[in-house]
Amino acid sequence: MITDISATLDAQVDFRDELLVARILVATSVDGLYHRSAIFERIVRALETFVSEAGGDRYEPLLHFPPVMPREVLVKSDYLRSFPNLVGSIDTFTGNDLEHAELLRLADADEDWTQALIPAEVTLCSAACHPLYPGLAGRLPEGGRHAEVQGYCFRHEPSIDPARMQCFRQHEFVYIGEPEGALAHRDEWLERGLELLSSLGLPVEKVLAGDPFFGRAGRMLAANQKDTALKFEIVCPITSTELPTAISSANYHLDHFGAPFGILAADGAPAHSACIGFGLERITLALLRTHGIDPTDWPAQVRLRLWP
Amino acid sequence: MITDISATLDAQVDFRDELLVARILVATSVDGLYHRSAIFERIVRALETFVSEAGGDRYEPLLHFPPVMPREVLVKSDYLRSFPNLVGSIDTFTGNDLEHAELLRLADADEDWTQALIPAEVTLCSAACHPLYPGLAGRLPEGGRHAEVQGYCFRHEPSIDPARMQCFRQHEFVYIGEPEGALAHRDEWLERGLELLSSLGLPVEKVLAGDPFFGRAGRMLAANQKDTALKFEIVCPITSTELPTAISSANYHLDHFGAPFGILAADGAPAHSACIGFGLERITLALLRTHGIDPTDWPAQVRLRLWP
Repeated sequence: MITDISATLDAQVDFRDELLVARILVATSVDGLYHRSAIFERIVRALETFVSEAGGDRYEPLLHFPPVMPREVLVKSDYLRSFPNLVGSIDTFTGNDLEHAELLRLADADEDWTQALIPAEVTLCSAACHPLYPGLAGRLPEGGRHAEVQGYCFRHEPSIDPARMQCFRQHEFVYIGEPEGALAHRDEWLERGLELLSSLGLPVEKVLAGDPFFGRAGRMLAANQKDTALKFEIVCPITSTELPTAISSANYHLDHFGAPFGILAADGAPAHSACIGFGLERITLALLRTHGIDPTDWPAQVRLRLWP
Repeated sequence: MITDISATLDAQVDFRDELLVARILVATSVDGLYHRSAIFERIVRALETFVSEAGGDRYEPLLHFPPVMPREVLVKSDYLRSFPNLVGSIDTFTGNDLEHAELLRLADADEDWTQALIPAEVTLCSAACHPLYPGLAGRLPEGGRHAEVQGYCFRHEPSIDPARMQCFRQHEFVYIGEPEGALAHRDEWLERGLELLSSLGLPVEKVLAGDPFFGRAGRMLAANQKDTALKFEIVCPITSTELPTAISSANYHLDHFGAPFGILAADGAPAHSACIGFGLERITLALLRTHGIDPTDWPAQVRLRLWP
C-alpha cells in the first residue's frame, strides 16, 4: 500500500486546527500537549461510564490511578527494553542551600539545571494497567482476578497529530490468572469492544497489531508478536482512512507481568494476563471526527448514550 | 504552642489505615502515592461540580490541564528558586541502539540508568494555575480576565500523612489584570470559600499563611509573605486539631506571573494576579474525617450536595 504521507500530515494539521479554533482543545508550546475544554472532558467522562457499564459485576471496583507510579514498575515491566523512547522518568532536588545556589546558577545561565537533580522514586505512568501488578504479588484464587482501572498515561512522542497526545487516559479491563482465562478475556473483550464502539456510530475494525518496540531488536519483537497473534487493535479513521488510528487495544501478555511481579496462578505457575484498553482521548477524537465537532448535532442514538 | 508531634504522627497513621482498610484509597510502595477508589473519585467529582457552580458565569469556560506542562513554565514561574525540593522534572531517552544497550546494561546492573536519559521539554505540573499563564501573554482587556482551571499537581514530599499526597488535584479560580481586581478576587473568594466549605459541615477557619519556601533565604521570603498578607489558607482538622490542614488557599501574586510571562494589564503595566485553589483530595479527606468513612451516612444536607 502506498500512502501519501504529506496528505496525512495535512489532514492531521487540519483536524488539529479545527479542534483549536472550536476551542475543544487548547494548544500549548509543546506538540502533543493540550488543555481540555469542558466539552471534551464531558465526552471523556461519558465514555468512561459507557465503557464501565459494559464490564458488569464480574470486575472488582474501578480504581483510578494517579499519573505517576513507583519507579520499580517501569523497570520490572521491562518497559526500558521495549519502549525507552517513550518513558517519562522523574527527577527531583534533595540538596542543601549550597547545592540550591548551584541549581539556580545553572538555570540563570540557561545551562542544564537538571544535572543538580536526582531520580525520584516515581516515574510517569506508562500504561494504565502497569501500576496494578505490584499489588497482586502472591498466589491468585482459582479463576484469577478481574480488575478495572483508569489512569493518565505518558508517552514521549511529540507529534502534530491530535490523536497522538503525550498525556492521555486509558480505561482498562484486566484479567490475571490462568492462560486460558487470559486468552478468553482478550478475545471476548475484542468482540465486545467492537460492538460498543460500533454502537457509537464509529466505523471501526479489528486488526492484528505489533507494538512499536524500539530499535533493531524491536523490529523482530514486533514481527514475533504479530506471528503469535498476541495483540489486536480496534482502529478507526481519524485523520486518515488509509492509516486509521488505534482507539482500543486488546492484548494477551503471556506471563510478561506475572513472572517479574511474582504473581502466581492458582496452580503455582506464573500468572498469565490480558487487558483491553480504551483510549478515552482517541475515542473522543474519533467521535468528533465522525459525527462533527458539536456534540449537540450528533446522531440521536449517540447523543442518547454520551450527551444526554 | 507546644504540639505533640508523635501524637500527630500516630493520628496520621491511624487515619491512613482507616482509609486503606475501607479501601477508600489503596497504598502503593511509595509514601504519598495512592490509587483512588470509585467512592473517593465520586466525591472528588461532586466537589468539582459544587465548587464550579459557585464561580458563576463571570468565568471563562473551565479548562482541564493534563498532569504535565511545558518545562518553560517551571522556570519562568521561578518555582526552582522557591520550591526546588518539590519539583518533578521529566527525563526521556532519545538515543540510538548502542545507547539503548548501555541504558539496559545500567538497569540490569542495578546502577543509575537515568544517566542515559535527557531532559524532556515537559515537567510535572507544579500548581493548577501555572500552565495557564503562557497563553495570556500580551495586553489584557480592561477589567482583566477570569479563568477556571483544574489539574493534577505533583509535589515531591513523601509522607505517611494521607493529606500530603505527591499527586493531587487543584480546582482554581484565577484573576489576572489590575492590582485592585486581583486583591478583590482574592478577598471575595476567601469569604466565598469559607461559606462553601462551611456549608459542607466542615469546621473551617481562615489563617494568614506563608508558603514553605526552600532553605535559609526561604525563611525570609515566608516571613515577608506573611508581613504583606499575600496568602491565606482555609484550614480544617484532618489528623490534628492543633495542626489543621490547608484544604484551600487564596493568594495574591502581585506581578509574580504577569511580569515573567509578559502579561500586561489594560494600562500596559505588568498584570497582577490572584487565585483560589481548592484541594480536591484534601477536601475529600476532610469530609471523610468529619462525617465518617461512609458517604451514605453523612448528614442529609451534605449528601444532598455531594452524594445524591
